[in-house]
Amino acid sequence: MAKRLKGLSMIEPFSQQTAQQRRLSEDWGFSSKSQGKRLLNKNGSFNIKRIGSSEWNALSLYQHLLAAPWWLFYLLVVVVFVGVNCFFALLYLAIGIESINGTNTGVWTTHFYQSFFFSVQTITTVGYGGMAPQSVAAGVVSSFEALTGVLGFALATGLLYGRFSRPSAKILFSQNAIIAPFEDGWSFQFRLANERSNQLVNLEANVIMSTLETVDNISKRRYYQIELTASRIFFFPLNWTIVHPITPESPLHGKTAADLEKLDAEFLVLIKGYDDSFAQEVYNPTSYKWNEIVWNARFVTPFYPSAAGDTIMDLGAINRYETVGRQA
Amino acid sequence: MAKRLKGLSMIEPFSQQTAQQRRLSEDWGFSSKSQGKRLLNKNGSFNIKRIGSSEWNALSLYQHLLAAPWWLFYLLVVVVFVGVNCFFALLYLAIGIESINGTNTGVWTTHFYQSFFFSVQTITTVGYGGMAPQSVAAGVVSSFEALTGVLGFALATGLLYGRFSRPSAKILFSQNAIIAPFEDGWSFQFRLANERSNQLVNLEANVIMSTLETVDNISKRRYYQIELTASRIFFFPLNWTIVHPITPESPLHGKTAADLEKLDAEFLVLIKGYDDSFAQEVYNPTSYKWNEIVWNARFVTPFYPSAAGDTIMDLGAINRYETVGRQA
Amino acid sequence: MAKRLKGLSMIEPFSQQTAQQRRLSEDWGFSSKSQGKRLLNKNGSFNIKRIGSSEWNALSLYQHLLAAPWWLFYLLVVVVFVGVNCFFALLYLAIGIESINGTNTGVWTTHFYQSFFFSVQTITTVGYGGMAPQSVAAGVVSSFEALTGVLGFALATGLLYGRFSRPSAKILFSQNAIIAPFEDGWSFQFRLANERSNQLVNLEANVIMSTLETVDNISKRRYYQIELTASRIFFFPLNWTIVHPITPESPLHGKTAADLEKLDAEFLVLIKGYDDSFAQEVYNPTSYKWNEIVWNARFVTPFYPSAAGDTIMDLGAINRYETVGRQA
Amino acid sequence: MAKRLKGLSMIEPFSQQTAQQRRLSEDWGFSSKSQGKRLLNKNGSFNIKRIGSSEWNALSLYQHLLAAPWWLFYLLVVVVFVGVNCFFALLYLAIGIESINGTNTGVWTTHFYQSFFFSVQTITTVGYGGMAPQSVAAGVVSSFEALTGVLGFALATGLLYGRFSRPSAKILFSQNAIIAPFEDGWSFQFRLANERSNQLVNLEANVIMSTLETVDNISKRRYYQIELTASRIFFFPLNWTIVHPITPESPLHGKTAADLEKLDAEFLVLIKGYDDSFAQEVYNPTSYKWNEIVWNARFVTPFYPSAAGDTIMDLGAINRYETVGRQA
Repeated sequence: MAKRLKGLSMIEPFSQQTAQQRRLSEDWGFSSKSQGKRLLNKNGSFNIKRIGSSEWNALSLYQHLLAAPWWLFYLLVVVVFVGVNCFFALLYLAIGIESINGTNTGVWTTHFYQSFFFSVQTITTVGYGGMAPQSVAAGVVSSFEALTGVLGFALATGLLYGRFSRPSAKILFSQNAIIAPFEDGWSFQFRLANERSNQLVNLEANVIMSTLETVDNISKRRYYQIELTASRIFFFPLNWTIVHPITPESPLHGKTAADLEKLDAEFLVLIKGYDDSFAQEVYNPTSYKWNEIVWNARFVTPFYPSAAGDTIMDLGAINRYETVGRQA
Repeated sequence: MAKRLKGLSMIEPFSQQTAQQRRLSEDWGFSSKSQGKRLLNKNGSFNIKRIGSSEWNALSLYQHLLAAPWWLFYLLVVVVFVGVNCFFALLYLAIGIESINGTNTGVWTTHFYQSFFFSVQTITTVGYGGMAPQSVAAGVVSSFEALTGVLGFALATGLLYGRFSRPSAKILFSQNAIIAPFEDGWSFQFRLANERSNQLVNLEANVIMSTLETVDNISKRRYYQIELTASRIFFFPLNWTIVHPITPESPLHGKTAADLEKLDAEFLVLIKGYDDSFAQEVYNPTSYKWNEIVWNARFVTPFYPSAAGDTIMDLGAINRYETVGRQA
Repeated sequence: MAKRLKGLSMIEPFSQQTAQQRRLSEDWGFSSKSQGKRLLNKNGSFNIKRIGSSEWNALSLYQHLLAAPWWLFYLLVVVVFVGVNCFFALLYLAIGIESINGTNTGVWTTHFYQSFFFSVQTITTVGYGGMAPQSVAAGVVSSFEALTGVLGFALATGLLYGRFSRPSAKILFSQNAIIAPFEDGWSFQFRLANERSNQLVNLEANVIMSTLETVDNISKRRYYQIELTASRIFFFPLNWTIVHPITPESPLHGKTAADLEKLDAEFLVLIKGYDDSFAQEVYNPTSYKWNEIVWNARFVTPFYPSAAGDTIMDLGAINRYETVGRQA
Repeated sequence: MAKRLKGLSMIEPFSQQTAQQRRLSEDWGFSSKSQGKRLLNKNGSFNIKRIGSSEWNALSLYQHLLAAPWWLFYLLVVVVFVGVNCFFALLYLAIGIESINGTNTGVWTTHFYQSFFFSVQTITTVGYGGMAPQSVAAGVVSSFEALTGVLGFALATGLLYGRFSRPSAKILFSQNAIIAPFEDGWSFQFRLANERSNQLVNLEANVIMSTLETVDNISKRRYYQIELTASRIFFFPLNWTIVHPITPESPLHGKTAADLEKLDAEFLVLIKGYDDSFAQEVYNPTSYKWNEIVWNARFVTPFYPSAAGDTIMDLGAINRYETVGRQA
């Protein structure tokens, strides 16, 4: 039953959810002006800009480096590596190239590349020894650079490990949600599969329907938790179809595609599970907007037996559906 | 009571399970053609092949390297190490062996092993200095190689740590499940022990019975969650016997061994616990197929007191059972 | 209903909380003499001093190094680095500078800085080779120093990774709690926002009201769990306003600002959530004291639509409120 | 009410526990011969020996290295370091000392320490270069040794990090449990404090009473979960007193100290909490045996206000109690 709580928001925990639907907090406050823009992006991030906080406090460098794509990460590493070595090379030039043993006399470009390579040999702790510090100043700078090197690569080690070991379940969602026949009536459905070969167990699903409603000439976002036939499964070998039956208590009851467009409807999805290879809980958020809903359809089974009797799961078919005639 | 939900799948969370049995989701959709093949392998993986996804997206390299056996991991490390050094050795030869200080003149094999060892000394950052880069080109390549080295071994550090620190509870299951006397009737039982000396606490068990049933000439997989006398224990010092009493509500009620074979019955098991040495939750899945069930048996106690009064747990006896006469 | 349990403390788990309020344990035992001092600091630590335990047992060095500010951490690293190298330099001088190849004869300061730089080159494993150990004693010491170096920087790697990867949700709380209109009555409110751009999901809130009450001339701390309209939310895109309605069952019912001062009232807050970038549960404690409560106020919306239709969240406005006239 | 379930064991989860007591599983099967020996040691380990499993399968090397005391860990590192270098030194001697540049001719001890130091300089990647490989054989061995070195120290890095980052809540339990006055009757009590300065939140307690009972001349271990006035707290600033009221339903009801001795009674304790500095759940098991119970006592408050108004927690006083006269 879709409980309407006057001015009161209440969301119960995963473990206390009853099958009951509720209107949720009005606090999220997405601007009612932003009709048409989605609240939650497909990749699970929100369409929000944060101001009024020191940039580097709010957006930790570490989290950015963890989330950056690999090509950018490596580019950054190379740029920082070259930059730091240029800095130290200039420092050695300032001290005087003659304070480094084994350098040739020559023009300044020769001096620069010699001190640059000396810097690289120091910061990576290669230290061939063809060049070596000779004066106290060069000794101090190269000592500091070697320390910088070991700490810097310690940091890089941590970052690389962090990037790899970060649990990142790749759950593949069907691109569309569908309005499909269910028992004697209809239902809202979407489905998901595990894109990776690692095992996800003990999954939970939560779906929230958000609409933009006009009350007293003011349009306000409303949030309803919608009832699922199964909100949890233990094993997730193939695909999982999430089904919300459109009963009279459903906020979708009696709505048409045009109604959902007018309501700027969006379905926020949160999937929680335990990832076996990372040994950690993972959460996957996504959303479906009204224009991603296909009416009068039915999902087509995405798996089939192989000749050898194995089961083949075709991830490319996760979004495959067929249209059905609208029933009475 | 074994609730039969028409066309409706519902699995409740660990924390909300009632003692009630249910027929579970039909969505897993293992092919009904694969009769005889097991759904869940003994080691907890599913008999599924995934297609339609970019291989390297779906099967992350990191997870493969984590899961690979040690001998393969080390072999890979050595092969990559030799390969990368051959690559750099050829690069130095292309630049010209004379651009590396301290190399002898000689035949090309001499040149190759000298540049190979120079490469090793660079990438591992040993840098004896017997050989050292002399030209700008050699400087650039060796700088890049040293950077490759420190980053590469940073990666190896992360991988090695990841391999070791991955929680991997070694729960030893009895090879067979048994149909054993229980109170005035019979029960389905299996048992488990902690193979390691680390402590597991706060364990939970879930068992799902899967059958292949023929409805309207179409055979379909059905899933029933079965009731356990104890689905949770706090401490796990010795063995834990999981007991499902075969009450009139049990899907096993009135079934014979031949029935289970015809139904291609399989019992999917999921054990969850907290591993004290890794300080993390761990999950252990396994399964018992109809041909791994021993009828009319009773488990034999696998532990006994030592002379000193200690308790000895014999892991080898975890599957030991004795046959009993079938009661009325 | 505010249950008063005689001499009995009971706090139920997050997952079992009913909407019911309770008086909590008297066991925390904050001194009744410390009226005016807060129990829980704004940053979530308690005003407690621990004695009677070996300092280094109780306060693990690792935890201090994790929690230390970055400038202090780096300063410590540099101080330890210089200190350890001075120690080894003195050791080399004790052995005799002549046992190190490549050192010049000279005054003792020259000897010291040469052995210091040799020590640095050894401990960082740079090993230029301009200087190298010549005697057995120097060989033994430098071997031990190199081992110290690799292990020491292994430790530093771990610490740096630990500092970065430690989940540290930066939840920004409003500086004040307010007594705000709510439905037909009043409520106790405060709000919070995620200061970082990472995503927090599945949040839970718990609020405990603590008062100093005088019974039989003895003043005692009492703890009441207070009822919230919403104690959990799934998504946390913008701000979350925590609302406790002041019903007749509320321990705040009928209280004035002067009453709360006399009772030395303090509201202890614990927020729990799942941090997406660290893939872990995080807890954020804080508290509001009676003098941080603003009466007859209403929070002002801290977000607004941008010209482009995006939602702008102004973290600086999280504490913005306006005063309202006291209703009947 | 102490439910006695005939031949049936049932332990419900943390989150489902009712206040109800139950007799628990008989499956743990501690030998009835081991009367007098404790089941659970004070440090939380069980008095069990495991046989019938390959030692190195059951007792993972990693877990041993994590759990080993620091002095042993460092000793092992040094022993392995010296051993590995001796091995490589002998290998270089076998190849011939002349294949290493910069070595002196001399007696075999000179050769040995030279190849030993060369090995150290290679494995730690110091590589001064005073000595350098000259032949192909020496090049191959030193290449392999340098790879061994970087991988070995990568392993050491992981182990050191694992040792430090392993959450290890140091909960200090009172040495004795007491039978103390409570309301109009008596109760079983013990208490605990956080020995460290890190914060533990959201704690849960479970206590199981184990007795050795004689039924039909066979003595059997029985397990009862006992009811606590508070099984959970949110904050844990000072001490927490766990209280089990001895109601008529308690298995302790009507028992004397002599009864408990005869029953070989032991109370198994499991404390679960969230450790703020490690950002992880931690579990602390311990136990109290009948001879650690003090009858007719009352715990003395272990904290007091300082002159400055702070609260001082005296960890040394956690076990302080005073005797009380036995009431009617």
